[in-house]
Amino acid sequence: MSFINDNFLLRNETARMLYHSFAKDQPIIDYHCHLSPKMIAENYKFKNACDLFLGGDHYKWRQMRTMGIDEEYITGGADDFDKWKSFATVMPYLMGNPLYHWTHLELKRYFDIDTVLSADTAREIWDAVNEKLKDDSFSCRGLIKRSGVEVICTTDNPYDDLAYHKQLRDFETKVIPAFRPDLADLKGDLPLRMDYFHENGCRLSDHAIDKMDDSIIEKLIYLGEEYAKRGWVWQLHIGALRNNNSRMFEKLGADTGFDSVNDFEVARGLSRILNELECKDALPKTIIYTLNPKDNYVIGTMLGNFQRGPARGKLQFGSGWWFNDNKDGMEAQMKALANLGCLGTFIGMLTDSRSFVSYTRHEYFRRILCNLMGEWVENGEYPRDTASLGMIVRGICYENAKEYFRF
Amino acid sequence: MSFINDNFLLRNETARMLYHSFAKDQPIIDYHCHLSPKMIAENYKFKNACDLFLGGDHYKWRQMRTMGIDEEYITGGADDFDKWKSFATVMPYLMGNPLYHWTHLELKRYFDIDTVLSADTAREIWDAVNEKLKDDSFSCRGLIKRSGVEVICTTDNPYDDLAYHKQLRDFETKVIPAFRPDLADLKGDLPLRMDYFHENGCRLSDHAIDKMDDSIIEKLIYLGEEYAKRGWVWQLHIGALRNNNSRMFEKLGADTGFDSVNDFEVARGLSRILNELECKDALPKTIIYTLNPKDNYVIGTMLGNFQRGPARGKLQFGSGWWFNDNKDGMEAQMKALANLGCLGTFIGMLTDSRSFVSYTRHEYFRRILCNLMGEWVENGEYPRDTASLGMIVRGICYENAKEYFRF
Amino acid sequence: MSFINDNFLLRNETARMLYHSFAKDQPIIDYHCHLSPKMIAENYKFKNACDLFLGGDHYKWRQMRTMGIDEEYITGGADDFDKWKSFATVMPYLMGNPLYHWTHLELKRYFDIDTVLSADTAREIWDAVNEKLKDDSFSCRGLIKRSGVEVICTTDNPYDDLAYHKQLRDFETKVIPAFRPDLADLKGDLPLRMDYFHENGCRLSDHAIDKMDDSIIEKLIYLGEEYAKRGWVWQLHIGALRNNNSRMFEKLGADTGFDSVNDFEVARGLSRILNELECKDALPKTIIYTLNPKDNYVIGTMLGNFQRGPARGKLQFGSGWWFNDNKDGMEAQMKALANLGCLGTFIGMLTDSRSFVSYTRHEYFRRILCNLMGEWVENGEYPRDTASLGMIVRGICYENAKEYFRF
Repeated sequence: MSFINDNFLLRNETARMLYHSFAKDQPIIDYHCHLSPKMIAENYKFKNACDLFLGGDHYKWRQMRTMGIDEEYITGGADDFDKWKSFATVMPYLMGNPLYHWTHLELKRYFDIDTVLSADTAREIWDAVNEKLKDDSFSCRGLIKRSGVEVICTTDNPYDDLAYHKQLRDFETKVIPAFRPDLADLKGDLPLRMDYFHENGCRLSDHAIDKMDDSIIEKLIYLGEEYAKRGWVWQLHIGALRNNNSRMFEKLGADTGFDSVNDFEVARGLSRILNELECKDALPKTIIYTLNPKDNYVIGTMLGNFQRGPARGKLQFGSGWWFNDNKDGMEAQMKALANLGCLGTFIGMLTDSRSFVSYTRHEYFRRILCNLMGEWVENGEYPRDTASLGMIVRGICYENAKEYFRF
Repeated sequence: MSFINDNFLLRNETARMLYHSFAKDQPIIDYHCHLSPKMIAENYKFKNACDLFLGGDHYKWRQMRTMGIDEEYITGGADDFDKWKSFATVMPYLMGNPLYHWTHLELKRYFDIDTVLSADTAREIWDAVNEKLKDDSFSCRGLIKRSGVEVICTTDNPYDDLAYHKQLRDFETKVIPAFRPDLADLKGDLPLRMDYFHENGCRLSDHAIDKMDDSIIEKLIYLGEEYAKRGWVWQLHIGALRNNNSRMFEKLGADTGFDSVNDFEVARGLSRILNELECKDALPKTIIYTLNPKDNYVIGTMLGNFQRGPARGKLQFGSGWWFNDNKDGMEAQMKALANLGCLGTFIGMLTDSRSFVSYTRHEYFRRILCNLMGEWVENGEYPRDTASLGMIVRGICYENAKEYFRF
Repeated sequence: MSFINDNFLLRNETARMLYHSFAKDQPIIDYHCHLSPKMIAENYKFKNACDLFLGGDHYKWRQMRTMGIDEEYITGGADDFDKWKSFATVMPYLMGNPLYHWTHLELKRYFDIDTVLSADTAREIWDAVNEKLKDDSFSCRGLIKRSGVEVICTTDNPYDDLAYHKQLRDFETKVIPAFRPDLADLKGDLPLRMDYFHENGCRLSDHAIDKMDDSIIEKLIYLGEEYAKRGWVWQLHIGALRNNNSRMFEKLGADTGFDSVNDFEVARGLSRILNELECKDALPKTIIYTLNPKDNYVIGTMLGNFQRGPARGKLQFGSGWWFNDNKDGMEAQMKALANLGCLGTFIGMLTDSRSFVSYTRHEYFRRILCNLMGEWVENGEYPRDTASLGMIVRGICYENAKEYFRF
């Protein structure tokens, strides 16, 4: 039996039934990612396995550095195969790391490769991947089509002209911009930019909350009110500590694998933001993500303070983010959400990724969701009621997001 | 097999043996709750299922709001059956939420109803519950008697005249007041009020610690010394962030479902309170609850700094509180307690509830306790020694609290 | 079947295969402990079971206090057997506490005792242990030899003359000093002391970070640079709150069971220390331990910011420390490490202990490691590839530490 098989991560009968009957074939609404609109618009073709799997992937770079591999073979000028081989060398050591699952899911789903990646198999897999990449159906758009993606929301600078999004209007997958202002430097013309984004289909914004001081709180209250006016959803990503390594920041810039989890207090600041907006009747639909799982119970209970119809799940606890985007992290987020809120209203997974093969993370999430629900049923914690179970699974995989965003 | 069956949550043989032999039939000492002494004294009869199950229950209100139900059908003027129906509609979505278990345990134990609650069964269950409620044995006192409750500690304003408690002196269940001062507004006559409460049977106080600043610390040291003089137990409930939603607070007041988990630092302040009292030889028996599970290891280790005979478990880690009053939360609290302290001295469960049917939460807790202990035995982490296991179970379910409080 | 049997804690076939084939027979590198060099040098012989098992063991003292035992029978002047008997009385109540496992592992491995300790068996075990202790092979050095220990790093005052370490140069187990300065009181001659320690084989230092303010941060940056010059490894133990009970501190001094878990913010301070050193190209190999498991994700991601070849795992997430040195704590640390970093580079266990029979904690750790890895394999989360699995197990149990420290 191959490592990635039909029942990967599905450890009980109910889980398998739920996944295969209700989850597997749902379309994908990827409402938050970091894909390049340019690459989609230009329908970029990947040069080789290194370009596809290692290009821009700081998750992998971090583990290569941990194994003591020279930066030359990570982000430096080394030969692409040598980089790929270096990464392959790390793989067997990554037991328990999501990269182990992500990589093998990607190899299986996009390239039908069952071989486990290691130094010994690096060449064989390199050749097999590269052979397939020659085909046009493995271009950026080809990969999106293969993945059953209905909507993509990119993450964009407010001053982006959205030219690539305009080019993509006739692409069968909707590619919608999301508005991501820099909280350190808010300019007066932002409302005009929101209008421009709105005209171009944007209904969603995103914010990195890396500290929780008065200045940030006031800016968020200002922005929230603007979004509410426009009927947008906003996302709050709380708790990163970025660019820790100045030496490498100077060399490689941001988003190159030198960020980590912060641990400031969030409850009171977050309460103030949401309450002031609620008092103005200007609280948008809100998705809150935390990078520090110590805050799962803070976030999971904060939502309930501001839930209000007619929307279902107006405030959402965002799925396990970044360093929590793994089996343990997703289970912790879903258990907190279920214990503290209403699991059945959850809008589910997003990739948050720069990679065109990371749609398998939706599969990964769906398997973990169905496995968790299956365990509850098998343990007698919820009735074996297929109709209700199917409704919850379909909702979380697709229908809740569709209803929530109405893109 | 019905959803709530004899072996609900008991997933292994040892768990089932422990629960049925040692836990099930123990009386209940409910040493902290928010029942209304007036309702007990007047032996209130519930009008219908809505009155009994939804009246004052902000846990349920929060989930109804999350489902987008209009406030009219939650705390507003809508018809009682329509409110009940609205709640029933939410139920299937609450997979993994303790309300799902609590509600079905309550329907089963008090009304012998095996039907799972949903929009489809709302009417049938409404009728069945209401029919039984007509009987006098379903009055407040009737429900308490059915539940095998030996002692109830209510939670009372220091300026309460305790008239209802006096009326209840001949009720077969002891109904004892607990002293809950408002830390924001301590008056000089509190010691007199303690004396009055003491004369009326009170041996227990309670405090909401929603921040940990010098003022609060000094007040607690003052109060602790007064309690020690009187031989009282004190309870410290740490870590709520209350009344987050000002709009709804103005409309509905406190305790209506707009509270959540706070995240301030607690270790140093708590250490100072306990140490200053210990140095004065004035540290009362102490029960510490935390609303934020991030503090489980802080609390679980703080106790050990001040444990001192002759009492067993003089300082207690309070059972999973409020948002932690669920299977995951109770297991996390008990695992922390067991790893860091001495599980066998634990005084166990309390309802902390406003509901007269929430005594099934003691059953819920006992099942979870026996299941956890059973797992440890089945995994070879503790010997299959029935005498020791039975001693621990009986202790945690009843005997430890009896010895600890000596009401 | 005896409580401590061949498959203790090994709950699946893969776990048993991994433990017996790859873990059990590995030597021990105990790179951090608090053994007394004097006792090793003088080859101290223990008077009786009380002297061996209870002497200096504040873990046990805390639980005895929790059971309400008088201090006279803990650290006071009571008869040694009575103290032993008092401890035995506590044992059955310690379900879920690591002391339950540690004690029975120690009785089994060193004294071949299968009897479970309780008040009833206290005398029988007392006699059996004392009989064996008469033999010279149960002296300090005898116990170390029996345990298969290759290297011991003690923890030493910078002003220690290391006379005992010098005496131990011909002992077959290497006994190496570690440099532990008091951060509250750093003197100007520390570099000279480092040189002296270096000449005497020291390659490792240790620091208690009980707060994270500018003064501590600057001292650590200063020390880190000194260590980097000498090629030392440094250890950062973050998050204790010590000597909470002033009354008992005056009576018994430090390290007597009155310490607990602190909860200050650590991310930004730690980032600054590591970054400033990295910018000076003066970041030593670093092992970071946290006492508060809320920081597992902060530490687990901080490492990745500064990993850099050629070493594998230059920055290490220290194994579950002190109050986390139990099954739950070790699993939480290993799962965080695996999800966020590279488990295969982990340098594994250390005892951190004052006891000469605590080497069984390495066995305890190895069983927990193999059980966790076995579970992942049985659940289909890693291929059943014995070569890779064996490589990871051998690495974590022994080979990674050997390569990392090169003592």
